Parts: sequence; C-alpha cells; structure tokens
Amino acid sequence: MTIAVIGLGIIGGSFCKAIKKHTDHYVIGVNRTISVAEQALKDGSIDEIGTAEDLNRADLVILCMYPQACVDYIAENGKYIRSDAILTDSAGIKSAICPQLKELSKRFGFTFVGSHPMAGKEKNGYEVSEAELFEGASFIITPCGADHESVRKLADFATDIGFGTITLSNPTEHDRMIAFTSQLPHVLACAYVLSPSCPNHRGFSAGSYRDVSRVANINSKLWSELFLENREQLLIELEELNRNLTALYEAVKSEDKERLAELLERGHQVKEALGE
Amino acid sequence: MTIAVIGLGIIGGSFCKAIKKHTDHYVIGVNRTISVAEQALKDGSIDEIGTAEDLNRADLVILCMYPQACVDYIAENGKYIRSDAILTDSAGIKSAICPQLKELSKRFGFTFVGSHPMAGKEKNGYEVSEAELFEGASFIITPCGADHESVRKLADFATDIGFGTITLSNPTEHDRMIAFTSQLPHVLACAYVLSPSCPNHRGFSAGSYRDVSRVANINSKLWSELFLENREQLLIELEELNRNLTALYEAVKSEDKERLAELLERGHQVKEALGE
Repeated sequence: MTIAVIGLGIIGGSFCKAIKKHTDHYVIGVNRTISVAEQALKDGSIDEIGTAEDLNRADLVILCMYPQACVDYIAENGKYIRSDAILTDSAGIKSAICPQLKELSKRFGFTFVGSHPMAGKEKNGYEVSEAELFEGASFIITPCGADHESVRKLADFATDIGFGTITLSNPTEHDRMIAFTSQLPHVLACAYVLSPSCPNHRGFSAGSYRDVSRVANINSKLWSELFLENREQLLIELEELNRNLTALYEAVKSEDKERLAELLERGHQVKEALGE
Repeated sequence: MTIAVIGLGIIGGSFCKAIKKHTDHYVIGVNRTISVAEQALKDGSIDEIGTAEDLNRADLVILCMYPQACVDYIAENGKYIRSDAILTDSAGIKSAICPQLKELSKRFGFTFVGSHPMAGKEKNGYEVSEAELFEGASFIITPCGADHESVRKLADFATDIGFGTITLSNPTEHDRMIAFTSQLPHVLACAYVLSPSCPNHRGFSAGSYRDVSRVANINSKLWSELFLENREQLLIELEELNRNLTALYEAVKSEDKERLAELLERGHQVKEALGE
C-alpha cells in the first residue's frame, strides 16, 4: 500500500515509524512544519514529503491532527482522496467528528473508518514518536457504517504494525469509555499537581505520586479541545468521581473507620475482579 | 550488626532480602504467622526465626507492622531491646506514633529514630517482597531528638542496602507531604475505580487508566488506619484537590475554553518546573 500520514506529531510519527518497521508500505508524510517532515525523511520514517495533492496516490490516509483540524483538512482536501481509498482519523474523541468525516467521505466518494490508537505519552511532538508506541496497545475502530472489507483491511493493518487488540465500538460508547479511561485521569492529574505541596514532593514521593501526576504534563491546547468536544460524558465521570471522593472525604472527616474501610475495600474488589 | 526485623510483610520481607543481598549483617526475623517466617528462612531472607526475647541480641530493630501495632509491640516488648541498640519503625505516618515510640525508648533506655522507606507495591505480603524494592528510593528519617551518631548509623545502613536518597524531616512535615504524595493518590485511585465504567475499561484503556487506578488494589485495613491517623493533613489535601477539580469541572461545564486551557497549562507548568 501507499499510505499518507497527515500530521507528524507523536501519533503520526509513531505510525510512520511502526509502518516502516513492520511492513513494506510506502509512506508519504504530510506536515505543516516542513523541518519536521524533513527530519522524518532523514530518519527513514517516511519515504517522501507530500502535500494534499499527493493524497491521490494513497490507498490509506491516516489523519493525526487535532480533532476539528481533521474535519477542516478533509473539507478542504478530501477531493484529492481516491474513491477506492480508506480514510481514518486517530482522534481521541469520536462523536464530535466522525459524523462530519462520514458526510465528507460520501461527498467525495471514498470510505471513512474511524479509529483511535490507545497509546500516547506525557510528551508531544515528532521527537518523542517511536516505532514501538503502539506495541500491544488497543486499536479502537468505529466503523461508522463502513463496509466490512474496509474495516477488516484497517484492522489487519493495525495488527501488522504492532497493535495487540482490535476493539470494535461506536462513537457514543467510545466517548463514554474514553471519558473515564483517558480524559478523567488527565483532569485528575492536573488538579492533583495544583496542590501547593507539589513543588516540594522530592524525597517524600515514590510510585503513587509519579503515576497519578504523570499526565499532568499536558498539551493544554489539545486537551481543552478534547474535553469540550466530549463535554457531556466527561461531566458525568467528573460527577461520579466527585460523589465517590466526597464519600471517602466524609468517612475520613467523621472518623468512621468502618465506612472508610468498606469504601476502600470496594475499590480493592473492583481491581481484584479485573485481575489487576 | 545483628538486625531484628519485626513483621515479614512486603516491607519487612524486602528489608530482610535487601540486607542479605547487600551486607553481611545477621538477620533475625520475627513474624506472627510462623509459616511466613519459615518461608523467609528457607529463602535465605533471614538467618533465624526469633521471638521478642531475641531482641536483646539486636543492634538494630526495624518495626514493619501497622502503625499502632508498632507502639503496642514495643510497649510490651521494648524491655528486651538493649540500651545500645537503635529502634526504627517504617510506618507511613509519623506524628501519631513517633512521640509514643520516643517515650517508650526513654522508658526502656534504647535509642529511637523514626523512618519511612518510600517504596511499596499495589500488592502486600512477604510473597511480593523483593531485595530490589528500595533500590534508588528515598529513605525518610525523622530523628525525633535522637543523637547524630544514631541518625548517621541508620542513614548509612539505608544507603548500604540500596536506598538512593536520605531525606531528613520531622513528623509534622513528613505527614503533611505524605498526605499529598501517597495518601491522596490512594484515595483518588479508589474513588476512580468506583465509577460504573471501570469494569468495562478493557480495550478502551492504556497508560492513563493503568497508572491512576494502580494503587486502588489497596489493603483497606492498613490504609484506613493510615488515613485516620493522618486525618487532618489528608483532609487538607482532599479539600485542595476538590477546589481544583471543581474549577476544572466548572470550566468544562460552562464551556469556558480559555479558562480550561489556563488551568491545564498551570498543571503542565508545575510538571515542567519540576523537570518531570
């Protein structure tokens, strides 16, 4: 295949590197900042630096940009994508953009299949991308009405480049689950490190601090967009968390040891049941 | 030295293993459940199984029990500890027990130096203890009025068995910082996994979920004691977290993108400033 990757940040760069590591596919890299694309070419992560016009040579187009930027880019450049090609995005939210990308795919005549690679880092940009980022990770596919053949093709591609699991979902379920598994921990991490105690943690901290604070080193522009485009689901999880934190707070405040132990035990049991 | 380790759970077991790995010290293991002590002897983690009476042969006594159990144990058995010996605990809270242990050390005539090894796991018990648990970790010492020579001796011992940093503190500062670095993440993890979304996370989760939920697999009996014995400091951190979570919640709810990005950016900057 000839694959066009649009946006060479951590996700796009890692796609390029994983493709070159695992397959013989030809990779066209498209990036706004040309110096980054030049670095990718130099690294052998891509085979050529392309522009939107080059999309007409691609069998598979992977968008690796901010959510709304994906829609804007395709509205402008979807006309270059061949009718036998597959377009996928890799955005962290689905309901807010999949219907629009689906609509554009109908207008321009290609096939759209939504997807979300469940991997990332607390840092951003091409320089932290790596061929192994997706190794063993889950690749979520939201078919959005695409034909089985195209969905299978995208799933096979994901497996080929190292993903460990293919998870079929729909935008609503995806966004509800992501609010919990990914967005909530990012909100939490930021709220956590805003404590006046944080700057003095050295010498008093170990794994618990490291883990809960890790993703606070956040790309505020990207994540404020992600949060607001999944606002309803995130609010539900934040309210649920608030209920549970309040219950624990009240148990500590009232020195109700039995109630406190019972709440902690419920947490323990959830993890036990999951085999974690 | 002859070292007595009282309580062969994850912390006590790891002390024994680290001592045998790094030094020639002779280790007496004391444990309520005899089968565990027998396993430790078989593993070579200890040189002999002892009882309280054997404390009179120890140069260093390390308590690795629940906080109040440390006090109770010494009230009953402190009489066996030699006057030239050092006693240290390894409890995760200090204000609630150090004054009592100090008092008992005066009564019985030995030297007490408080300490807290900053390492642990989401599992408990001798079977998950390991010689490398403390490798590079911080060893917090709260001298509680002990002489410099004893403090130095304990610090050297900690360095010898693999700790990376010695942090000198006092019970008040220790408890304030631990409320943030350790207790709050444990409360958070439990509150987080109580979401109805949690049992369905598979396929939708990656590092963020794994990290924030890790310590929810909690020992509810131990941690409810730790939380209540550091109640005031923990409540302060829970209230601070609630303020910050509420600010983020309000920004999402009111779709105030600028305010949201600004709050996230503050989180980002805290981590950046710490070089994390």
